[in-house]
Amino acid sequence: MLYYTALVAVVQLFAGFFSSALMCQQCGGHKYEGSVRLSREECCEATPVECKSDQVCLRALVNSPYGNFFLSGCHAAEDDLIGCDYHALPHNSSVLRCVCANAECQNDFTGDCAVGGTQTTTKAASFQPTSSPSPTSSQSPVASLPPLVMAPIGRTIRGLSAGKRMDGSESVEAALLREPDRRVLSIQSHVVHGYAGNKCSIFPLQLHGFEVDSINSVQFSNHAGNVEYLTLPTRYEHVKGQKLTDTELEELYEGLRLNKINNYTHILTGYCGNVDFLKKIADVVTDIKRKDSNTFFVCDPVMGDHGKYYTPRELMPVYRDVLLPLADLLTPNAFELGELTGSTVATEEQCLAAIDVLHDKGVRFVVVTSGVTDAQSEETLCCYSSVREANASSPTRYRFTFPRLRGHFVGTGDVFTALLVAWLDRSRGDVSGAVERVLQTMQALIKRTSEFAQSQVESNSRACCELRLVQSRCDLLKPPPAEGILVERI
Amino acid sequence: MLYYTALVAVVQLFAGFFSSALMCQQCGGHKYEGSVRLSREECCEATPVECKSDQVCLRALVNSPYGNFFLSGCHAAEDDLIGCDYHALPHNSSVLRCVCANAECQNDFTGDCAVGGTQTTTKAASFQPTSSPSPTSSQSPVASLPPLVMAPIGRTIRGLSAGKRMDGSESVEAALLREPDRRVLSIQSHVVHGYAGNKCSIFPLQLHGFEVDSINSVQFSNHAGNVEYLTLPTRYEHVKGQKLTDTELEELYEGLRLNKINNYTHILTGYCGNVDFLKKIADVVTDIKRKDSNTFFVCDPVMGDHGKYYTPRELMPVYRDVLLPLADLLTPNAFELGELTGSTVATEEQCLAAIDVLHDKGVRFVVVTSGVTDAQSEETLCCYSSVREANASSPTRYRFTFPRLRGHFVGTGDVFTALLVAWLDRSRGDVSGAVERVLQTMQALIKRTSEFAQSQVESNSRACCELRLVQSRCDLLKPPPAEGILVERI
Repeated sequence: MLYYTALVAVVQLFAGFFSSALMCQQCGGHKYEGSVRLSREECCEATPVECKSDQVCLRALVNSPYGNFFLSGCHAAEDDLIGCDYHALPHNSSVLRCVCANAECQNDFTGDCAVGGTQTTTKAASFQPTSSPSPTSSQSPVASLPPLVMAPIGRTIRGLSAGKRMDGSESVEAALLREPDRRVLSIQSHVVHGYAGNKCSIFPLQLHGFEVDSINSVQFSNHAGNVEYLTLPTRYEHVKGQKLTDTELEELYEGLRLNKINNYTHILTGYCGNVDFLKKIADVVTDIKRKDSNTFFVCDPVMGDHGKYYTPRELMPVYRDVLLPLADLLTPNAFELGELTGSTVATEEQCLAAIDVLHDKGVRFVVVTSGVTDAQSEETLCCYSSVREANASSPTRYRFTFPRLRGHFVGTGDVFTALLVAWLDRSRGDVSGAVERVLQTMQALIKRTSEFAQSQVESNSRACCELRLVQSRCDLLKPPPAEGILVERI
Repeated sequence: MLYYTALVAVVQLFAGFFSSALMCQQCGGHKYEGSVRLSREECCEATPVECKSDQVCLRALVNSPYGNFFLSGCHAAEDDLIGCDYHALPHNSSVLRCVCANAECQNDFTGDCAVGGTQTTTKAASFQPTSSPSPTSSQSPVASLPPLVMAPIGRTIRGLSAGKRMDGSESVEAALLREPDRRVLSIQSHVVHGYAGNKCSIFPLQLHGFEVDSINSVQFSNHAGNVEYLTLPTRYEHVKGQKLTDTELEELYEGLRLNKINNYTHILTGYCGNVDFLKKIADVVTDIKRKDSNTFFVCDPVMGDHGKYYTPRELMPVYRDVLLPLADLLTPNAFELGELTGSTVATEEQCLAAIDVLHDKGVRFVVVTSGVTDAQSEETLCCYSSVREANASSPTRYRFTFPRLRGHFVGTGDVFTALLVAWLDRSRGDVSGAVERVLQTMQALIKRTSEFAQSQVESNSRACCELRLVQSRCDLLKPPPAEGILVERI
């Protein structure tokens, strides 16, 4: 799926402002649920709103394979269309777009731009199909209101518009005021110092307004992972602490169950080093899903990377046979994907074939986070998303190409998955838009971490290689534009 | 101490804007450390800045008992002076204040307002001593630049300016971008569901940019505390989970110590139910302070309330004889203050006398959070702050009176203390300003929690009485103006 706002990025608007406030019939009012295919009724109640002085009222009729729908809203010049939250567009849609004048802004829109007064009071738009080979080239402004243009939506390079779509124009304060009414159960490790597991997941989710109930599968002084950055030590020399047993996990969950507070919209699991504990997690997930089948289970099947296990091999069949059938979203790397499907995943083709195996087992969303070696280069890395809807014949897939940054730090995968939960929820299932936002934040986080490590390298301390997560809280909330993120439908 | 901006609240400025940008010699540049007494050199490097179109350049010379100093900065009309971060003013200071014209804005300021051009290009200020009996009454705007007025700073009612002082004008985004470079070790309880202990402390501190290393003294499914709200059950029926032993705490700390990552600017402790564990906490604090005597230890000596212990009585002598002598800031309620000092604390006089006992034992900051019964009314509650500096003959004390809100919820004290750490640090030790901000946030948090509980009361579930902490993240970061908070020096 593509966002309407991705189109807007190549639209040139005349400069100039309205002298008086413009009323616009904006989608607003009641919440809508679930679907990204929004008929006007499904979407929300259309309410007249007053556009700010530097905005226009933008209206669009979308003809899509899933049914036509209507969009409208106040629109900042050269910025996103802000209306019914996201306006995700199905593929193979076409769009009739119109910047309207005061008179017709509050009327229904059937695809015809009104004729009266538009030239004097509106900004005119020149529309360019997004399949343009040169999406950055400027279009000449059109001196009078142009005819409406059918704008086919297809394969698009979105790197240049990164960070300007969905609700990119939403202020940080508005994002902090969101109350998504979501409750996550996150079962992961806890480290006192530094970042791994729950220390990576809880804060980003809370920042996005999620209630996070966290069960700490271990409490360690610090993580035990390897980092790679310049000449710095790759590991902490010591790791001390305690592990939660499967019996203790059962006891904790029993407390939640007996008090009837085991109600979750999401469950999130990550690293787990023990077969019995992993099986107990599966019991917990099963019980919560029995109570509410809508609970969305996000499973990061952490087992190893680069061809090697760093967890016991005995975990794999438990992930494959017990956790995987419960998962709504699975986030393996290429190695884990290969192990779970009994295949080698080195090429994109192998990756997509293996993803299909997971879909066949009932996993709706798959995000392969890294490690498809043949798709990588010296400068770039890749990840993949795939969604297969229950009644769709084939999955919708995207390739994300992004710059390879210096350094490998512990906890990046855990932050990635937590942010994916937040954005997937906020985009109501638009996995490609969500992954793009997550990548934007991850690039900023890794750069900040890397720069800090660089500045501290003389201390020769492992401590300076911890993720700069708290320092990145603005980027966690509002992904910054990131150069060079390429999103392609495949 | 009072903030200069508290004075500004009663200053009337002419309306009107500069037509061109104004350069102002603003304190900026390098960081300064520690002191609230800022000579210009100590403060920071003065740098010319361009004031925004709706700002004036405001300059002030402060004559204080601790030495004179200079303030300046771009100043939003009727808003705070923004210069060297906070501009905390010592008591018994006087201020020479001047809104300057373009010509002299970049010069030093010795207290004389330049004569040339000021009337045409600056906003004139009428100055009113803050001891005015009617701080809300409007002053007539002065038609020409007024003579400078010595403004004695003294006892002031600040409720009306609540939320507009310190950096009240800072945007939420700017607050999210702050990097205070602080690292807290927080040793408290962990509950999977709901709010108590570390679940209350970590998020607010992280939101303010603090690195939080958290040691969970227990992992329980939920808290065991009593709430009072309408007809709702006062307790969860079940509590399940595990406790950390003193040996396990020692082991965790050993991991930090061996890796040389036991470096903290702050230590924060709260509820602890076990004598041996509390003694081990004292060992940890002692060891960290041995390494860095500047580490600021904030101890909430949680023992009981309303005349009753809800922890073992054996904890008291450990708090009194072992923890207290290590503490830089102690946050007892009246009952705990009484127990620690062997006295009854029912009146303000008794409270202040007991606080003196703590100061005599070396505690610099004391905040008595609640429970001085004779100072309370049906409508209001009180808390007290007291600071005794090493070389000062007597402590500086404040009484805070604030509206009594319906409902008693678990975890409010833990949020209070965490926010106090954040604001005390941000105000560089201005405890009265910090407490006021904390109270503003607490009022908003309790109101939101109470309203949510009210809306859910039909479910008759304890779960709806949990603090609405995540939903209050904007208020945690930027305290909202709260009606009826009265701050008085006593």
